[in-house]
Order: sequence, then structure tokens, then C-alpha cells
Amino acid sequence: MSLLAEPHHDGSPLYLPDPSPALGGTATVRLRTRPDAGGRAADDGPGIDRVWLRTTYDAEPTFHECVRVPPPAGRDDGGIWWQGRLPVHNPRTHYRFLLAYADGSQAWLSAAGVVGFDAPDSADFVLSTHDPAPAWTKDAVVYQIFPDRFARSAAADSRPTPGWAKPQAWDEPPSYLGTDDRTWLGLYGGDLDGIVEHLDHVAEVGASVVYLTPVFPGESNHRYNASTFDRVDDLLGGDEAYARLSDALHERGWHLLGDLTINHTGDTHEWFVAAQADPAAPTRAWYCFGPDGSYESWMGHDTLPKLDHTDPDLRAAMVAGPDSVVARWMRAPYRLDGWRIDVANMTGRLGAVDVNHEVARTVRRTATAERADAWVIGEHNHDASGDLDLDGTEGGWHGTMNYSGFSWPVWSWLRAEQTAARPFGRPVPVPRRSGRLLHRALTEWRARYGWRAAAQSWNILSSHDSARIRTLVGDPARHRVAAGLQFTLPGVPMVFAGDELGLEGVNGEDGRRPMPWARRAEWDTDTLAAYGRLARLRREHPALIEGGLRWAYVDDDTLVYLREHPDGTLLVAVRRAAGPAVELEAPLLELAGADLLLATEPGVAAADAALRSDEETVLVPAADGPGCWVWGRADR
Amino acid sequence: MSLLAEPHHDGSPLYLPDPSPALGGTATVRLRTRPDAGGRAADDGPGIDRVWLRTTYDAEPTFHECVRVPPPAGRDDGGIWWQGRLPVHNPRTHYRFLLAYADGSQAWLSAAGVVGFDAPDSADFVLSTHDPAPAWTKDAVVYQIFPDRFARSAAADSRPTPGWAKPQAWDEPPSYLGTDDRTWLGLYGGDLDGIVEHLDHVAEVGASVVYLTPVFPGESNHRYNASTFDRVDDLLGGDEAYARLSDALHERGWHLLGDLTINHTGDTHEWFVAAQADPAAPTRAWYCFGPDGSYESWMGHDTLPKLDHTDPDLRAAMVAGPDSVVARWMRAPYRLDGWRIDVANMTGRLGAVDVNHEVARTVRRTATAERADAWVIGEHNHDASGDLDLDGTEGGWHGTMNYSGFSWPVWSWLRAEQTAARPFGRPVPVPRRSGRLLHRALTEWRARYGWRAAAQSWNILSSHDSARIRTLVGDPARHRVAAGLQFTLPGVPMVFAGDELGLEGVNGEDGRRPMPWARRAEWDTDTLAAYGRLARLRREHPALIEGGLRWAYVDDDTLVYLREHPDGTLLVAVRRAAGPAVELEAPLLELAGADLLLATEPGVAAADAALRSDEETVLVPAADGPGCWVWGRADR
Repeated sequence: MSLLAEPHHDGSPLYLPDPSPALGGTATVRLRTRPDAGGRAADDGPGIDRVWLRTTYDAEPTFHECVRVPPPAGRDDGGIWWQGRLPVHNPRTHYRFLLAYADGSQAWLSAAGVVGFDAPDSADFVLSTHDPAPAWTKDAVVYQIFPDRFARSAAADSRPTPGWAKPQAWDEPPSYLGTDDRTWLGLYGGDLDGIVEHLDHVAEVGASVVYLTPVFPGESNHRYNASTFDRVDDLLGGDEAYARLSDALHERGWHLLGDLTINHTGDTHEWFVAAQADPAAPTRAWYCFGPDGSYESWMGHDTLPKLDHTDPDLRAAMVAGPDSVVARWMRAPYRLDGWRIDVANMTGRLGAVDVNHEVARTVRRTATAERADAWVIGEHNHDASGDLDLDGTEGGWHGTMNYSGFSWPVWSWLRAEQTAARPFGRPVPVPRRSGRLLHRALTEWRARYGWRAAAQSWNILSSHDSARIRTLVGDPARHRVAAGLQFTLPGVPMVFAGDELGLEGVNGEDGRRPMPWARRAEWDTDTLAAYGRLARLRREHPALIEGGLRWAYVDDDTLVYLREHPDGTLLVAVRRAAGPAVELEAPLLELAGADLLLATEPGVAAADAALRSDEETVLVPAADGPGCWVWGRADR
Repeated sequence: MSLLAEPHHDGSPLYLPDPSPALGGTATVRLRTRPDAGGRAADDGPGIDRVWLRTTYDAEPTFHECVRVPPPAGRDDGGIWWQGRLPVHNPRTHYRFLLAYADGSQAWLSAAGVVGFDAPDSADFVLSTHDPAPAWTKDAVVYQIFPDRFARSAAADSRPTPGWAKPQAWDEPPSYLGTDDRTWLGLYGGDLDGIVEHLDHVAEVGASVVYLTPVFPGESNHRYNASTFDRVDDLLGGDEAYARLSDALHERGWHLLGDLTINHTGDTHEWFVAAQADPAAPTRAWYCFGPDGSYESWMGHDTLPKLDHTDPDLRAAMVAGPDSVVARWMRAPYRLDGWRIDVANMTGRLGAVDVNHEVARTVRRTATAERADAWVIGEHNHDASGDLDLDGTEGGWHGTMNYSGFSWPVWSWLRAEQTAARPFGRPVPVPRRSGRLLHRALTEWRARYGWRAAAQSWNILSSHDSARIRTLVGDPARHRVAAGLQFTLPGVPMVFAGDELGLEGVNGEDGRRPMPWARRAEWDTDTLAAYGRLARLRREHPALIEGGLRWAYVDDDTLVYLREHPDGTLLVAVRRAAGPAVELEAPLLELAGADLLLATEPGVAAADAALRSDEETVLVPAADGPGCWVWGRADR
């Protein structure tokens, strides 16, 4: 299915030069069409006569006619360009294009594509006046570290084991079935100085941001059940080690993100212990106690009592103002650059009560007051669309962990016929689906989140909560295809430490295997190298950092897309299996060049894999197996 | 395209026995599948092995497995029935079905149909814990009257013409191009006693609710620019005439709805005159004045200054509490049964300010305090989905004027090749689209609004704001097809007075033609009779009032659907053109009977048009032209 004839717009610089306009201003919006198609048929059909931008003004639809303009500089490739002016009257502006064809018919172009009927607004393009995520996040690659499993410094050997913990040897596989309590209590003893000792490895992966899962003490190996937010766990080296890690990262010009559970604490938390012991305790109202002394908890787990964000004192302690947990750890000597907020989706929500957006705004306000370029990402393993680009003048989460819009679609395209991998949060295995459905899912979710919020969200293949990508796809080459998607689709790659070595795991707990530093023979060095190459390529090419996404070709096993940018456009092909060459009805002018810049499979000679083209077509080479290839101009 | 093999659920009693469960309760939810299909292929494919309900709990996805159950009483027609229990934890609960097939594949059933990828939640089924619209609205047919154009009582002749008005003779066509000021100022002198004199006609149409556009004085013929909300315009007969009309309606067991503009007033309004004259006036803060004395107005029309609903005094005067405009007119002697709220979409919204939902909740609270069974409908000519079934414990509008989800799809299917009709709020004519796109548009909008909110909204063919349906479709038979859809699809029919006589009008202003009481030869009596028959049929059949909607067959010119109800299921066919018989692979058991209950075209003999069937199929007869037919059991 060739898609190049479709009319196209997205939130990238070619189409939306100012993606973050001021409230009350106007945004220039561009649309690209082709003379031969107009988006309803692949090869013919009447041309587009007139185009309007349709938006709403205080919820009333308004239309603004677009005019034909010359192509942007360097884009004179046969496309027809239209331009309109979009009033930015509300904090969240949504818009679509009304296409009027020469034969009198009409269609709409929304972010989900061209539709021939008057569809609801849910797939409209979205423009937000909230500040974008900080500049340093644009070319970021995030490396997620689960501290207990990453690396032990020498000091770890001398630390006493706490009473709750079950010590485990570093090379022992983790318990993961939940049938014995080592799943939560098995302690490997990784620590923060251990991380400092392995930053060269993180550099080899190409990351520049370290996101650490919780470091506050909690009576579990994952520490999502905090006992206090006042200090770093001594088992990790304590506050001083945290400061040392932060220093080491910042010396490299890198950034550090914390992980904060604001929805609940552990039942061992000092706030909760006091609250439960005494109904008159000041922290009693910080939790959701009923008159009978029972309390709300995360998904019914009574070790995880839920916090009540309608209480102003809890808000001040947790998220609001300079004395809050959110603020304190962002200051010296810890200098967090932002937070990943755990269970952001449920925070502040309980039955008929919903202060979630207030909490999100407060976290962002507090973080931004500490440092203007703070980054705040909300965990949401579902449909976060209502929680991104909020109404009103203040924004909330910059983005989310994009399981729905990236992970699940990619997992579903690449999963092995047979796999022991278990699904994350569903009662059924990850299904196996076609490339056409991958394309549709990626498109629909990007539409729902909006271009910018999706681009500011994390592309995730595995995390501490999911099966490892390697186990799911069952094959190193398909794993590297997944990584290719992770680094070449819009969104910030988040690599769960160990993925780059081909670590396995059938679920989140199993995936938390300690890094095999001493067992280098087990490392999948081809995959490690592919991650490094992908990260470098992404950093070097503005098209991969902030370029548009225009689909060129989709079939069950192959997807081809353009990442378009004024500084040069790249062509990406991903295949989950061998397949024939693909001829695109595109002049090479649409691309920056025909050189092979990257192949995820080792041993591909650039000379053999250049794009061939004539004046009207480009030929994507056949492939004898899975892979990801990127073409462009090598000498830029 | 046969659709009967699709898995099906909707918000009707067969599938959701309690559509308005209490917060904290549980709802029983049923799904119907067929053994032969499972929804992905018309005639074969693997069966469905397991089914889960997926909902969210404080925004976290949760799954609840369904079990196979016997068919509901009287529904043993070969379908497979599943049942699940849905926790009603939040005021607005959304849900979908996860279908696991015998071959290991998976799909979702949402309100927009079966999808084979992990789609966002925007088309999920919706359940609301807010009280439903009052019981009397269920079988209501609303008759919209524009008072200046409906009927003059004898008293009208003796009323002086106000200075702003341009008197017009009753049989003179209205000015409508906006090029002369008679468009807004041309006064025909219809009054409220004139309405009382013609209630037998309203009864003939089959209506039971009269919705009157504004009756407060305003210096225009439409009165949407009120000068006061304290009295009824003397030109209409004043307060006493309003009370007389209310009495006359209530004596018949009918209901009366007012029309209130809460987004703005006229610039002649006593509040605004005072506010503009004196910056210290108490009502100054009721409008949106800038420091320079300029003020916000509706779409830039400075004769319509916008009200500021962030001001508590304005809210008290307009919408909140027993002294508000909303409350006062609901009490004796006027006894309004509810309100249609003008420009509900824009009310309380201005740039970054958005108190719209607070205002909607306040209007409903105030109205319901006056009478528990008040009905509140918000005007929205666009995508109202975010403004229906609000979060929180209090509801807002019960429904909307469903232009997007009913009118535009129907208009687009039935419009004439050539028509002088002008579009309502768009820069392009109503497009002409296929039956498949009609089906898709109706389905997508119903999904977005939710079953109940859509059923509580108004099915509109014309209004004082749009072209007349007759002018748009250009043909009496197609007009009656439109009426057939209006009365047989879920939703409350709202008939703009005059449609039933075949009145014409190229736009809203032109459509406000005075009723031709004295020119009976011009009446389209076939169409009038069809409205009456449709209204009676709707009132007599629970399937049309609250039955489900299951699509049976769709092609470009023909749509066939079931309205399913425990008390008997009807089959409806609508055709915009002649067409062959349609064979449905359905046993007649799915229906209550095969008798022709109604045909919109005159002269159809019931005996000639019964459904024919055998044990496995039903044959919808061929037709030699447009029409709407309803089959069921005649002797119930």
C-alpha cells in the first residue's frame, strides 16, 4: 500500500514552523498535496481545488481558507503546498483540513489521515500553548536503571542486609512468578556507586539521560513502596552516593531523572505509620481512610495506601512548593533534572473525585520553579490523551511512557510465533498483527496524543514492568528492528538497561536480571553496537530528532517512511521478514540523498545498499531477512 | 455489506438492562455474537473463545471476564450471548470488549465496531451515573416554533409596531440574504395566542413538546439578543399569553421548553446598558470588558456582548439558584418544563478561561431544583462529546441538538444533485455521500456521545438556523425518508414547524417562512400524514423509544437496521433510490414479526410489502423509489 500520494501535515518544522505559539497569536500551518491523487485514490482522481483550516474558537467551529504557496526551500519535488493561518485562541487548539475537490466532493485530513465523512474531532491535529519539553530532551536517549540490578560497587559487600530482604547472588536468576516472596524481597545489592563505575557503558549505548527507578528506602527490591522521601536508601549508598552519581552524570553533560510515586506510599512510610496509629495524627488526612479505619490502596494492595491529593498539607509535602519532595531533590547536591511520576494516571483520582490535572500542573510548576528546564513525564500504560496538553494556561506532564502508542503496536508487529513472554497488564498474550495494523495503530495514537506530546513521550521496548523485548520477539535481528523503530520514529527512546545486551525476561520481574558485567561472552555485541549506531545517527540528524513522519509504503512485513526536515530528509525501511524491493513513486528530490546511513544488521556494505532511483521513482532494495535501514545524504 | 454477523452491544435494555447505575455499583453488560463469523469475516472465521470487558478504574485499565449465558427471553435466535459485570467506579465509565478467537487472534469491540488493533479509548462504550433525562422525554416528539412566524392571533393586529421593526405581510417571503436589514428586523407578528389556536395541528404532527425560540423582548425578529429576561415580549402577548400557552399545553399533557441565551445578551439589555454607561455599575463585571472599554462579543458581533460566567453575581442572576432566570420561568404561572440553552458550546469559554462545565452543572442543578423532571438541552452544532456526561457527581446537559451526529450525516446522504440550499456553518455545500458513509458517520458519532447521551439528544432535519430539509433534498419522497430516519433512529425527533408541510428555505433565515395556514393548497399533505404516522408508530413501539440499534445491511442507497427490544424488535429499511430486494442471513426469530407497520410513501398496501422469510433468511422487498419501511408484529 503506497501512501505517498496522501495529503500530508504533521507538527514538524516543514509543516508547522512554530510548534509552540503564544496564546492569542497565530500559527502558520502548511499542507502538502500531490497533483496526481488528492488522497482518495492511489493513482488518479480529481485534484484539490480549495483547502480550509477548520478549528474551533471557544468550542465554535471556524474555517480559515488556505492559499497555495511555493514549496519550502529545497522541497520543490512536485508537491503542491498550501498555507493557512491558525488563530491560537485557546490553550489547546485543535484543527483539521477541509479538502474540496474539483468534482465537488469533500474530505477531511486529520491526524489519523484522510476521511470521507464528517468524523468527530478526536483525531484532529493538536497545538498546545504550554511550553514544550526542555531543549535538552530533544536529542535525549533515556537509559532506565533499576538500581538493585545494575551494578554493585565494592562498598556493597560491607552493607548489612535488612531484615525484610532475601539476599541473592548476582548471577542467580530472579524469582518472578510471585509464588515466592523473593520476587519482591530478593536483594542483589546493586548501588549508586556501581552505576557511576559503568557510565562508559551507558555512553556506549548512546544515552545521555539516566532515569533511576526509586532510590528512597522501601521494604522491597523495587522501592515503589517508600518508607520515607527524606533520604536515599543506605543500601544504595545513601544521600552522598546520590550526589556523587548526579555529579558524575552532569560532568558528562548528561541529565538525571528521579522516579516518584505520588499516588501512594508503602504502608511502612512514616506518614502512614503515624496516620494509622492515631486518627488524630496530622498525616491521617493525607491518606484515604474510611470511618471504620479501612483505607484505599493501589489496586487493593493494602501495603500501598493511596494518598489523598485533595488535602492541601499532603500536596505541600509531596508536590507543591519548595519544601515538597518534588522540589527538594532537584536542588544541590542532588540536582535532579526532572521526574518520572509513577502511576501518574491514577494519582488524585478516586471514584467521583478527580484532581489529577491539578496535581500534574502542580508537579510541573514546582519542578519548573526549581529549574526552568525541568522535565516531567507521567507514567500511563493506557490512553493518556486526556492527561496531556491540558486545558488552561498551565501544562502538566510533558509526555508519557508511550506503551499504548509505541510499545504495544511494535510488540504486536514483531512478536515471535512462539514466546514465553507474558503480557503487561492484559489477560491475553501480545497478539501478532500485520504491518498495516502497526501503521494504523501508530497513526491513531499519534493523532490522539498530538504530534508534540507524542514526540515528547518515551518510545519503550521494555521496562521494569514488561517482558524483555528480546524474549518477546525471540530473535536478535527482529530485536534490532524494534530498536530501529524506537530510534527512528518520533519520540524519545527509553532503553531499559540490559536490552542492549539482549537480556531476556518473560515479565517485568524476570526482566530485572542483574547486568552480566562479568559474563561478557553472553553479551549480544551486535545488538549493543546497533544501539550505539542508532543513538549516534539520531543525534546527528535533525530529521530524526524533530523531523516529520510521512508514510511511504506499508504491507504486512515492511514499512517505509520519511522523516522530513528542512535540513535533510531521511528514508527509513523496517522489515520483520525477508521481502522484495519496493518501488516508491517519489522523486529522489524528496530525500536528502540515497546513501545508506545505517543498517541494524551487521555486515551490510553501504555501497551495496544505496537507494536506486530515476526521476520519478525510488527503489528500496529487497532484503533477505529482518532489518532496519536508513538512507539519506552521508556527507552533510 | 451485510453487518448482522458483527458482534453487537449497545446501551439498550437487551444489552445493558440498567443504563443508569449508581456510583459504586455494578452493571450487567451483555454481548451478542454469532457462531458463524465473530465479526471479522462475513461468513466464516474462527469462533470467539473468550471475552473480557475492559474498563478503567481511576484511569487504570482493568479486565473482567464475561461468561456465556442463555439468550434473553424470546431471543433464542441462534446468537451466542455473553455477560459480564462492570464495576461502576467513576461517574463516567467507559468500556469495550476484548474478543479472543480460537485461532489465537484478538480484536476489540467498541461502540464504533470491531477493530483489529489496539485503538485509543475515544470510541469506547460509555456509561454515566448521572440521572437520565426525565421519563417524559423518552417518547417525546419536539416541535420547534419560531414565534414571529408561526401564527398571529387576532390581538396581534392591534399591537403597535416598535421602532426597530419592519412590518411584513404574513404571505410575503422573508428576506434572508442579510443584504437588507429586514432579515433581522422584518416582523410578521406571530404571537403566543396564535400558537394556542393551532395546537390541534401540532397534535396532528404527533408532537408532545413545544420548544419555543426566545420570547423575551429583543430588538430583532429572532429575539436572541434579549433586552431583558424579566418579561415576555408584549409583541407576543406578554407574560399572560405565555402563561396561557403553558396552561394549554399542560392541559393536553404536553410540555413546554424555553430557549435561553446565557452566552450573551443584546447590547440593548438593561444589564449591558447600565454596564456600558458606568464602569462602576454592578453589572459591569457581568460582561467581558477590557480596560479600554471594549468588550468581548459573540463571534465579534458587538450587538451581542458576551457574559462573564466567572462572576458570581452574573451566575446568580442568570443560572444559579431560585432567583435566576433559569429558575423563575420554570415556576407558576409559566411552568417551563426545561430549557434549550443557546450557544451552550461557547458559554463560559473565552481563551484560557473555561467554566463551561460548571455553568452546565449549575443550569441543571437550578432547573432540577424547580422540578425534578426538568429537561436541559445544550445547543452545540459541532462535537459536543466533551460536554455530555461530565466527570464528577453532577451532570450537565442531558443532550444536545445533534447536528453533527444526525443532521449532517443524513443531509449528506439525501441531498439533491442540485439544490439552492446553503450549508449551516461551513464554507462549502453539504456534500453528497454514500450510505456506507452515512452508516459510518452515524456510528462514530453515537460512539463519541455515548448511547444514552445520543438517545437523549435531538434528531434534527431543519431548524431556524439551517436550510429546510425539503430544499436540501429537493424531493418529497426523499424528505419523507429523512423523516423516517428522524423517527426510527435513536434520539428525540425535533421537528421545525413547517417541515411537515414541505416548507422550503435555502438557509435558516429563509426557512423562517410564516406557516401558510390560509394556503392549504400548498400543504404537502402526504408528508404531513407521514409525520403523524411516524410519530404514532414511535410512541407505540418501545423498540423505537429505547430499543437497540443493530445494523443489518448497508450499501450506497439502502440501509437496513434492527431496533431491538425485549418487547419486540422492528426492522427498518431506508432507501434514497430504487433498489433490488435485500436478503438478510437472519432467522425471522430475530424480529417480532414480518408485518409492514409503516411506509412513508402513500398508497403502499401492507399485504404487498410484508417481509418474506424462511428459517435462515429474511427478504427485504425491492423498491421502485425512495422510502422508509418498518416491519414488525402488527397485533402486539
